[in-house]
Formats: sequence, C-alpha cells, structure tokens
Amino acid sequence: MALIVQKYGGTSVGNVDRIQNVAAKIKEQWSKGHKLVVVVSARSGVTNELIGRAKALMPLPDEREMDILMSVGEQETIALTVIALHAIGVPAVSRTGAQAGIITDAIHTRARIVKITGGDIAERLEEGKVVIVAGFQGVTPDGQVTTLGRGGSDLTAIAVAASIKADICQIYTDVDGVYTADPRIVLSAKKMHEISYEEMLELASSGSKVMQSRSVEFAQKYNVPFEVRSSFNDQPGTLVKAIDKTLEDAAIAGVALDRLQTRVTVNDLPDNPQAIATLFDDLGQSGLSVDMIIKNLGKDGKSNLTFSVSTDQFVRVEKVVSQTLKKLGSGTVRSAGEISKLSIVGVGMISHPGVAGTLFKALASVGVNSELITTSEIKISVALDPAKADAAIRAVHTAFGLDKKA
Amino acid sequence: MALIVQKYGGTSVGNVDRIQNVAAKIKEQWSKGHKLVVVVSARSGVTNELIGRAKALMPLPDEREMDILMSVGEQETIALTVIALHAIGVPAVSRTGAQAGIITDAIHTRARIVKITGGDIAERLEEGKVVIVAGFQGVTPDGQVTTLGRGGSDLTAIAVAASIKADICQIYTDVDGVYTADPRIVLSAKKMHEISYEEMLELASSGSKVMQSRSVEFAQKYNVPFEVRSSFNDQPGTLVKAIDKTLEDAAIAGVALDRLQTRVTVNDLPDNPQAIATLFDDLGQSGLSVDMIIKNLGKDGKSNLTFSVSTDQFVRVEKVVSQTLKKLGSGTVRSAGEISKLSIVGVGMISHPGVAGTLFKALASVGVNSELITTSEIKISVALDPAKADAAIRAVHTAFGLDKKA
Repeated sequence: MALIVQKYGGTSVGNVDRIQNVAAKIKEQWSKGHKLVVVVSARSGVTNELIGRAKALMPLPDEREMDILMSVGEQETIALTVIALHAIGVPAVSRTGAQAGIITDAIHTRARIVKITGGDIAERLEEGKVVIVAGFQGVTPDGQVTTLGRGGSDLTAIAVAASIKADICQIYTDVDGVYTADPRIVLSAKKMHEISYEEMLELASSGSKVMQSRSVEFAQKYNVPFEVRSSFNDQPGTLVKAIDKTLEDAAIAGVALDRLQTRVTVNDLPDNPQAIATLFDDLGQSGLSVDMIIKNLGKDGKSNLTFSVSTDQFVRVEKVVSQTLKKLGSGTVRSAGEISKLSIVGVGMISHPGVAGTLFKALASVGVNSELITTSEIKISVALDPAKADAAIRAVHTAFGLDKKA
Repeated sequence: MALIVQKYGGTSVGNVDRIQNVAAKIKEQWSKGHKLVVVVSARSGVTNELIGRAKALMPLPDEREMDILMSVGEQETIALTVIALHAIGVPAVSRTGAQAGIITDAIHTRARIVKITGGDIAERLEEGKVVIVAGFQGVTPDGQVTTLGRGGSDLTAIAVAASIKADICQIYTDVDGVYTADPRIVLSAKKMHEISYEEMLELASSGSKVMQSRSVEFAQKYNVPFEVRSSFNDQPGTLVKAIDKTLEDAAIAGVALDRLQTRVTVNDLPDNPQAIATLFDDLGQSGLSVDMIIKNLGKDGKSNLTFSVSTDQFVRVEKVVSQTLKKLGSGTVRSAGEISKLSIVGVGMISHPGVAGTLFKALASVGVNSELITTSEIKISVALDPAKADAAIRAVHTAFGLDKKA
C-alpha cells in the first residue's frame, strides 16, 4: 500500500470522456488499496480561451486579475474529476490550490511556492478518500489567488508529494517517458528506465520539452522521486530520482536538441569586467537568460561577445542590451542568425574520458564544426547550423551507443 | 457623491462586447465621483454548460463539488470586468465571494448568508477603486466554497449594500422595472416609480419573476433601498423601499399572475390538527411550500384538503404526502389539475374598503368564479382556469384603474 501523487495534464482531462478515463485509471490504483492525491490541469484549450477573452479587452491585462481568471480552469476540472469518481463508486473530494495550502509569493502569473501546508489532505486520505487538487494555482498568505506559470501543475504535484512524503509522484503526460533523443528525429531512440535529477535538469534546459526545470529542481531539492509516463497506455515510464554517480556505467544518458536559439553578437563593448557584468545583470533583471557565451578581444581595447538566447526572447534581449550599451557609452547589438543547440547529457561523463572526442568526431562526420561550445560537469552543448541538426543528433546518438541501450 | 452598489446579471455580461458596455456604464457613474461596488453574475449560459458537463458524468452530482464547479462562472466575469475597466482607465479590483467576506452556512448549492465582513472593500473604495464582486458565491467559516442558489447574485448585491451601508443598490436586469402587471399580457401595464418592500415581496411570491423573495426580504430586513432597472437603456427603473402606508393613495399597486400551479387534493385525512400539522411539517422539512389551502370536512370523521403547489414541485410533493399518509394510516393524494393564480397586491388595500368587491366583479365579468382564495393584509389571490387567466388579469388591471396609473 503506497502513498501516490498523480498528475494529469490538460490533454488527459480535455473533455468529459477523457475525465472518465482518468477516473478509471485512478480507480484501478485506489482499488489496490493505495492512497491517492491527484493533481489535474485545466482542460486543454480552456486557459488559452480565457486569456483570449482578456486580451480582447486589453492587450496587457493586469496580472492579479489574470490569476483570478486563469485559476478558473483547474477549478472546473477538479470538480468534474471528483464527480466522475463518485459516478464509479470511488469516494473523492476536491481541493483548490488555496484549500490544499499551496502558499506562494505575490508575483502574479509566475508565483513561487513558499510553503505547502497540505490543508486537510492527510485527514481526507485517512478517511479513504481520493483527494483531487487543482494544479497551477496557489494563494498568498493574505488570500490573493496566484498561478505558478508554465509547468505549474507539475510543480504542484511535486510539491504536494514533498509535503505529504509520497512514495512516488507520477506525472501523466502525452509522451510515455524520457528518451535518449527525440524519437521523432532519431528513430532508434530508446525510452530510459530511470535517470538522475541532474540529467533530467540538463535535458530540460537543453530543449527536451518533457518538463520544466523548476519542477525537477523542486523534486531534487526535496528528494521526491517521480515518474514521467503516458496517460494513454499502461506502460511504465521513466523514473527520475537520486542516482549514485559511481554506479553508472553509461557515459551518456541522452542527446537533446533545442532548435529555437538565436545567436546574438555584441560588438565594441568596453573591455572591462564591469561592463560585461552590467550587461548580463540587466538581462537577468529582465528575466532573460543567455547561454553559450564567447568573448573575443576586439579592436581599440573593446571586446566582442557572442551568446545564444531563445528565439522568442530575442526582441526583448535586443531592447535590454541596447539600453545597457547606451548606458555604457559604446557597443552595438545584432542577431547573427538562428542556431540549433545539441547537448549530450550524462552523470557518467565525468568518469569517462574521451566523451568530447567521440562527440566532435561524430559531428565532424556530418560536416559540423561548431564554434560555440559550453560544458558543465554532466553536459556538453554545441551550437550548429539548424539545417544539419537532424543529421548531427542521429550521428551523435549512434556514436555513444544509445541505439542499443536497453 | 454617493456609495452605490450595482448588480449586472448574466445577460448583461454575456460576452466581451457586453462586458465593455457594462464597464462604460460603470465609468459614467465613477466619473461623477461616486464610489462603486459592482456585483456580477456568470456570463449567461456558462453555469448551465458547467452543470451539463457534471450531469454527463453523474445525474445527481455531489453538491459540494457542484459549488466548486459553478462558482467558476462568476470568477471569470469579475476578472474580465476589471480588465475591461482598466482598458478605459478606471482603477478597479476584483473580489471573489470568499475575498469579499460573504460567509455562509454549509448547505451547498443553496447556502444562506450568515455574515458579511466585506473583506477589504472599504479600503479599496477609499483608494478610489471600483470593486467588482462575484455574485452567487460565498464561503463557509472553514473555507468551503458555496453558492447561494437561485437569485443568488441579487442577494449578494443587497447583502454587500447592507454591509457597507450603501446609499442605493441598483439591480440591472433584462426588464426595465416592476410593472402594474406583466406588460406582455396587459398592454396598458405601467412601470411603477416606487413600491414598498411588502408589495414587492407579495409580487415576487405571486409569480412576478423580477426578483426572488429572499433578496427582497434581506433588503427589507436591513432597510436597503434598491432599484430594479434595465441594463440596456438609461431609463430610471422602479425603486423598492420602505413606504409609509398612510401616505399611499392607490388601493392596488399591481396585479401578478403565476401560471404554473398544480391543485393538489388530499382526501380522507384523519380530521385532527395533529394530522394536518404533520402533513405540512413534512412538506416544509422537504423544502416544499404550499399555498391557498382549503379544508373541508369529509365523511366518517375524515377531512379533505386542497392546496396549490408549483407545478415543477408536484412530483416531489406527491411523494412526500404519500409517505406522510402511510404514516398517518389514512388518506389519498392526487392532482386536481393545473391552475393559474392571480394576485392583487397593494399596501393601500387595508385602508380601502371594497377592494374584494371590485376584484370579484371584474373576475365575474370574464366568467371566473374561483373556489380557492387566500388573503393577506396586502394581497388577495385567487385560483382560476389557466385558459381564462389573460382575460382575467386584463379585466382586473382595468377595474382598479391601473391602466391610467402614472
């Protein structure tokens, strides 16, 4: 008998039929005597509909009001899911984010969880009830409704699992696990049975869209093991948990590709540490993150910087950098075109010499000679021509023996 | 500069365009320096959609979960209304029922308000903000979401007006006031400028569908003057307030018609006060109200009862009465057909002799000879053949000179 937290995303609860499917899956576990807390998202499309109505009234609506508006989606789903469970004889009760004691700061539309009291979840579980919790939403200590931003429902599930010390947190989604590479590009990609938090984090920040980094970070911080699995079949997914590096034998766990990066070039920046610090500080203050930074010394005591950013953030990055350069009194900023970023990730990397050699040999075999390279303890990323990205990821996947991975 | 509570129903906020219209009306008052609290309903159709989804899962869904589900509708509207106000430069903030401190009992789907703290409404008004409050919803002292049942948004508005001691509460609706009779039947019906709580109450319980009795009772209890007016034009509506009877000159304020009543006949009931008390007590316990009761002595020390009930409650009434009769050991219950109920209402009635004479003469002129009659201090109701109802109400309206009322 285990204490299980499950999370179902918007597609899984997209309509009344699918909610009935979810209820049946919950009943299956509940019938085995497990205790269940289930976090659900808004029906797919609902949140976008609500945002659409708000933006029809005003292009940039007040964020506090957007939270009042958007939290409606999950509130509908929790009630419908409970009713679907009652219909098949499973005792259940719903809890909004506020009722589940998901306490956040007051940064509306992207609040951070500061505390989870869990409300009366433990008592309801003791009564034999399944507790259905609204994902994505929380409440400030003074009663203001907040939402947690992208990936918020996953975060709710991990956080609830941490607070009630669940045995496992199952994230049901539209993919059936974490793969050694995107199976739509690399046909020989294999589903991983398990993966460490660190690897999952590096994959998340390297373009694998399975989960947002913040949820993985939260799970790692509170040591919550979680499983990413499909809501459309009964196959086991990928377990993400703390793994002792020394027990690892494979050098590389997977290969990720982020297609949507823009290379930004800043020329004629004053060549002193203060100038560069100011530039990255200003970007950070605006919530913009950069990656793969290279600095070259330019002419006349100036320096040139190249870095990559998400393409959808480029316009804002350009604006912030222009303001900084004006403040610094020198420099120009421009886009140097789109790139794709290929990353290899693995906690075993550090104990396997020759990983970089294998990588660059594989890249060379498909004509890639990257100039932008970054490394971490468990990741190597290279920027490359988007036209060569598919060939490159296939070559790298094969070179590290991932085609044959169990 | 007045403190005004306004309430807009579901049709008035039915879509983004209409919400913009409501925002414009609010701005007009706000620009004059008035302080405004505005109660809004769910967009028309939304609550029924939500109920439809729940009933697709289960015919009789849990009422606690229905409240979680249904309260979503108003929560959407408050946010959209605030955003519409921001778009035209009016400072505004939304409050859910819980945030506005609408504290109720735990009778889900038809909760009663037990207290209104008002939350921080007064402070927000002081800051110059318009406060938009979700109608129809409340919260129990331990944080459970409740809804107030039919007419709940009107009740929210009246209750908020009472708690902040508003100068006036304006109920914007799809009719433009209270008429001397239903203008769709009586073409010469006139809109009343003002009417007393007592008359409004009698009209509400006599088939006039403008407002539910409970809201009028609440307004009377806390002496909240309110105005029923149209959200589609700028005409003044009907003011409902405390009126000194002695100042009244007209005998009759209006004529109401309730088309949907069923006459229930109970035969061979034990003829003792205890039996009749049990029967009406059992009906009351089940939330069923009866009207226009007549008792006749029958054969063998038994009595016969006739009374009227809302037709949509007849099935439940029959079930409850059957159980009571089984308990009492004697009696049968059956429907004696549908009736319409015509009522004349007026606080001046008591000081005007001959009112009953005028009424029955008018009824006789169209061939109505009613057997079921009830009277109160300010109302006389008669049951009649539905086929003769339209002719009867026109004749009565004319007989009391209401065609010529200002």
